Amino acid sequence: MEWHKILDPNSPELDRLAERYHLHPLHIEDCRHRNQNAKIEESPGYIFTVMKGVRLNSDGALLTADLDLFLGENFVITVVEDDCPEMQALMEQVAKASNGDSRADQVYYRVLDHMVDTYLPVLDHYDETIDTLEDQALENPAPKTLSCIFETKRNLIVLRRVLANTRDVANHLQRTESPFINRDMWPFLRDIYDHVARNLDTVEMLRDLLSGALDVYLSSVANRTNQVMKVLTVLGTVALPAVVVSSIYGMNVKGLPGAESPYALAIVLTLMATSTILLLWVLKRFHWL
Amino acid sequence: MEWHKILDPNSPELDRLAERYHLHPLHIEDCRHRNQNAKIEESPGYIFTVMKGVRLNSDGALLTADLDLFLGENFVITVVEDDCPEMQALMEQVAKASNGDSRADQVYYRVLDHMVDTYLPVLDHYDETIDTLEDQALENPAPKTLSCIFETKRNLIVLRRVLANTRDVANHLQRTESPFINRDMWPFLRDIYDHVARNLDTVEMLRDLLSGALDVYLSSVANRTNQVMKVLTVLGTVALPAVVVSSIYGMNVKGLPGAESPYALAIVLTLMATSTILLLWVLKRFHWL
Amino acid sequence: MEWHKILDPNSPELDRLAERYHLHPLHIEDCRHRNQNAKIEESPGYIFTVMKGVRLNSDGALLTADLDLFLGENFVITVVEDDCPEMQALMEQVAKASNGDSRADQVYYRVLDHMVDTYLPVLDHYDETIDTLEDQALENPAPKTLSCIFETKRNLIVLRRVLANTRDVANHLQRTESPFINRDMWPFLRDIYDHVARNLDTVEMLRDLLSGALDVYLSSVANRTNQVMKVLTVLGTVALPAVVVSSIYGMNVKGLPGAESPYALAIVLTLMATSTILLLWVLKRFHWL
Amino acid sequence: MEWHKILDPNSPELDRLAERYHLHPLHIEDCRHRNQNAKIEESPGYIFTVMKGVRLNSDGALLTADLDLFLGENFVITVVEDDCPEMQALMEQVAKASNGDSRADQVYYRVLDHMVDTYLPVLDHYDETIDTLEDQALENPAPKTLSCIFETKRNLIVLRRVLANTRDVANHLQRTESPFINRDMWPFLRDIYDHVARNLDTVEMLRDLLSGALDVYLSSVANRTNQVMKVLTVLGTVALPAVVVSSIYGMNVKGLPGAESPYALAIVLTLMATSTILLLWVLKRFHWL
Amino acid sequence: MEWHKILDPNSPELDRLAERYHLHPLHIEDCRHRNQNAKIEESPGYIFTVMKGVRLNSDGALLTADLDLFLGENFVITVVEDDCPEMQALMEQVAKASNGDSRADQVYYRVLDHMVDTYLPVLDHYDETIDTLEDQALENPAPKTLSCIFETKRNLIVLRRVLANTRDVANHLQRTESPFINRDMWPFLRDIYDHVARNLDTVEMLRDLLSGALDVYLSSVANRTNQVMKVLTVLGTVALPAVVVSSIYGMNVKGLPGAESPYALAIVLTLMATSTILLLWVLKRFHWL
Repeated sequence: MEWHKILDPNSPELDRLAERYHLHPLHIEDCRHRNQNAKIEESPGYIFTVMKGVRLNSDGALLTADLDLFLGENFVITVVEDDCPEMQALMEQVAKASNGDSRADQVYYRVLDHMVDTYLPVLDHYDETIDTLEDQALENPAPKTLSCIFETKRNLIVLRRVLANTRDVANHLQRTESPFINRDMWPFLRDIYDHVARNLDTVEMLRDLLSGALDVYLSSVANRTNQVMKVLTVLGTVALPAVVVSSIYGMNVKGLPGAESPYALAIVLTLMATSTILLLWVLKRFHWL
Repeated sequence: MEWHKILDPNSPELDRLAERYHLHPLHIEDCRHRNQNAKIEESPGYIFTVMKGVRLNSDGALLTADLDLFLGENFVITVVEDDCPEMQALMEQVAKASNGDSRADQVYYRVLDHMVDTYLPVLDHYDETIDTLEDQALENPAPKTLSCIFETKRNLIVLRRVLANTRDVANHLQRTESPFINRDMWPFLRDIYDHVARNLDTVEMLRDLLSGALDVYLSSVANRTNQVMKVLTVLGTVALPAVVVSSIYGMNVKGLPGAESPYALAIVLTLMATSTILLLWVLKRFHWL
Repeated sequence: MEWHKILDPNSPELDRLAERYHLHPLHIEDCRHRNQNAKIEESPGYIFTVMKGVRLNSDGALLTADLDLFLGENFVITVVEDDCPEMQALMEQVAKASNGDSRADQVYYRVLDHMVDTYLPVLDHYDETIDTLEDQALENPAPKTLSCIFETKRNLIVLRRVLANTRDVANHLQRTESPFINRDMWPFLRDIYDHVARNLDTVEMLRDLLSGALDVYLSSVANRTNQVMKVLTVLGTVALPAVVVSSIYGMNVKGLPGAESPYALAIVLTLMATSTILLLWVLKRFHWL
Repeated sequence: MEWHKILDPNSPELDRLAERYHLHPLHIEDCRHRNQNAKIEESPGYIFTVMKGVRLNSDGALLTADLDLFLGENFVITVVEDDCPEMQALMEQVAKASNGDSRADQVYYRVLDHMVDTYLPVLDHYDETIDTLEDQALENPAPKTLSCIFETKRNLIVLRRVLANTRDVANHLQRTESPFINRDMWPFLRDIYDHVARNLDTVEMLRDLLSGALDVYLSSVANRTNQVMKVLTVLGTVALPAVVVSSIYGMNVKGLPGAESPYALAIVLTLMATSTILLLWVLKRFHWL
Repeated sequence: MEWHKILDPNSPELDRLAERYHLHPLHIEDCRHRNQNAKIEESPGYIFTVMKGVRLNSDGALLTADLDLFLGENFVITVVEDDCPEMQALMEQVAKASNGDSRADQVYYRVLDHMVDTYLPVLDHYDETIDTLEDQALENPAPKTLSCIFETKRNLIVLRRVLANTRDVANHLQRTESPFINRDMWPFLRDIYDHVARNLDTVEMLRDLLSGALDVYLSSVANRTNQVMKVLTVLGTVALPAVVVSSIYGMNVKGLPGAESPYALAIVLTLMATSTILLLWVLKRFHWL
């Protein structure tokens, strides 16, 4: 069994292998023009698979990287992106793990398994993010929360697309009766399918929760506006009698009752306080506030 | 018929059984790494089933617990989580109920039936919760209501996932023609499928109602804000003429009509009251309030 | 042909029939534990059907009642709920209508047909309710409208569930090649399927309209708040110049222009009116109001 | 080939035909009880089709009318509603168009084609309506816009239902291998299917756009409320310093700085203007407005 | 192999070809009545395909153009719209690219490939537009943003329709076993399907993001209204004690404490400032603002 690890898709090595194993020109083109969707295609003589790995860079941005796989009778060819050291590191891990594997389909499974394992930490990251966002939306809804919700939404859309395609690949694999895959690999391929399907489920769940977080945001803002309005109205209610009464007593007219009395101020202040309390009581009583 | 009840998935007993009954290493791994989805897999020699039981702890939090089942020609193996006394208690109930059962598939059915019975009280609990939440949202929409709505939403998402997977298991079972399941068990397995499908229906209905409760919340808050605004506007309308008229009579200018009259105050107050009433009537008349 | 009308599911009569016709214990249990979903199950010797009838009680609450049917070679068994006189009355109607029927499948069809006929008046009732709710939401959005919208939503969810299950039953029936159903009944069973499918369509349409009514409610409240705000702002705009000008002339400072003039009041009032009109014109001109 | 044009479904002519061509009683009943869904049913000896035509009356209300068709070996029977002159006019058009047709299936196709042609002008009407509504919602959101949006929504729901059922009919027709339809009609029936499918697509698109118009409405109202609030706040900001300063100078206390100066008014007004401008600048500077 | 390039669908040339190759009259009609959906129809002797190309004009408006293709044993006929120079230019490009092709199916593939390539730049354009809209909605939600969101929504609906139909065409092609398409073209047709499916995926993603942008808009406006309300309330809170206190001291009553003191103003101002600060502290303390 030969495992050809191509680290630069533009290397002539790939052309040489294409000739040797009769790889279809469209597949070689796929290796060189990146940003494919995950897919699997059975050709005469080999199975061509595109897998997508994901990871978060230090800013929390979601990055995807392609990996192209050719599985034939006695060979595996892996083609990684030339500017993605993480992917190359992953290949080394696979190489270590598959040390004792003597069959091409075993190596092929190992690579798939390692690619699928890159999804879980990313999903866990978004699960935590959404938890935080929900709390923020509830307690302190700010524009930053909003932009973060939509950043996450965008990433989950990308992630769902990657996972949906990968699930289709895994589904195809667990049903295929390819001559290049031995029957004893079937439970393992089903296991990969189970993992991907569960991950996709999780993405759908996260999307659901995220849209919930947005609803919390809107409801929370509406609630706060309502509360601020109440404060403003209470202020208005408190001010109204005081201002009206003192304005009346400030008029330059004759005959203001009690204005000449030495207890004038006390009388007036009592009047103000009484009408304020009465007004608040009325509003409360009829549930107008 | 032998029923092996494993209470600790890490016990060497499980390894011994795996060897004796040729259980697949991936299934043993599934027993030991918990948090699987409910699933069913037919292997040569046995059927492997993962079931999820649910329950509410005293705070109302939703907990799930795995149960792994191996059903073979003449044996059943049940593996419960080692830190879940509820699951172990459930197994004892099953043991009691299946006292007279002499066939492995009968025991298998009993276990499934008891697991499925754990869903109903949880669903009833959420039905009541949503009822309460709807009333709160309508009568007294507070941030607490909001956070409770989203807590419930999260739990229903989890519950739906558990039930959807369990339904797939039940559906597989009622269609399978496994040598380990006798034909006379078919109506019973169909009965389990009916129960799970009905439970899943209920979850969908609860989710629908919950999203309705959120809409009530938002509409209710909007309505209250509208009402508070009206109160504020009425206050403003009442204050406006009083303040304007008394400010005018408070000016240090000459020629304020009636200011020198002994009925000055009465005149002014009448003026205020009249313009206030007129203003309110105009607003009401043209439906501006 | 024998038609056994069981009016009390707990009567020993049912046990006797179960023995005589070899009815499955699970089906007898279904008859006795109510609140089943509508379903159909073909067993050796008979077809077991659960139908749900619906009706509105005097308060407009939606009630459902189960009816269990066994159709065999030469017998029909109907089991109604023991506390539901409406269902028993319905059975009497069926008995009258099927007076001349000599075959079991004809009686079976009659019962189904009468059950399905209970849906239409309920749907008509909700159609009218939604019409009213839409008008209320548009013209006078009050919390009562909101709670009524959600009451109706809840009922439509229940109704959809009943109808969806009944459609599955009807669909099964029109495709089945049961020995107990004569070919000449096929157009009649297809007719039942058509009725139920149309009813289900109507429920979906009503749900769509109801969610529209909720949107009207929210938009209508938002619109009203906007209008109240405008009134408040116009009031503020009217008050502002009057209060500012009269406060200025109320200051205890020297050199207020025209304060000593005999036309002081006229001057000041003109000043107030002019600035108010100017302000309103500016707001209108720049579409700020 | 005989074409029987029944203009009144209750005429005994229909009974006569039913007897002659062995039409099923349920189909005759369908002809007489209107408001069927569009459907197609193959019976021994003939195909029974219900088609729905649509049109707008002068108020823009959507009306539907049934047309029932029986297609047999050598006959076509069309049954129109007795109170629908438009449908009878349509039949006359068909009669003219199918002047040279000598086969029953050709006449049948013509009738279907003319019925399907009634959908397009209605769809165009709603396309224009939604365009207008979107503009109104954006520029001048009023309750009338809202009620018009929901009127249109209701009609599109009805239209979708009609079209969905008609598409099912057309789909059945283009797949059927009926002895009454010649192979050379197949491309024409596929053409009808294409038309109906495209119309249904258009309805879905219109529904999508309409729900967009509602979102515009809500957003537009929210935006306007926001703008009115800003105006109110600016008014408040302008008034605040003026009122506070002039109230202070209106107090009956000693030692108001500059109150005795002949430039008192100028000083005070400068103070007011300065603080107003400062306040507005601060609000602007920190993006609080 | 003959390639007939018809630049004007109304030319008699097309009629001549229709006669020569026995093209169905409905297909010739489709060529002449534009605004078809993309579709594919296998007729005896040839495959008829309608493809839709898209492009943006200089104002950013989305334009679509039809291209009709007939593929037969030894001929290809392409019919472009007569008023669409872009389409004619595209045909010239295809002619150049397919210089060396000697088989009809190769030319056919080239045309399809070039048509499908027109989608990508349009999708990229909308991706950027949505990015901009999201930023605008977050930072500066204005009615213009709203109308632009709905313009884009409308275009994406059109685009989705075009792509969905084109995908059906491509799907049909990659599954068909037509005698006119050589087996070695299959990978290329699958490649076209992959491209269109990916484009359709992108449109769905863009629609999802766009609906997100609308949610940002609404939430952003709600947030701003909330903020403006807070400013207004703070202004009110600041003004309230100042106005009330100064009004009281402006009353024409006796016994105002400290009014005669030379420090009267200082006392009063201190009173105002203290109560303002106290009030703000209370509001802050109890999270009422």
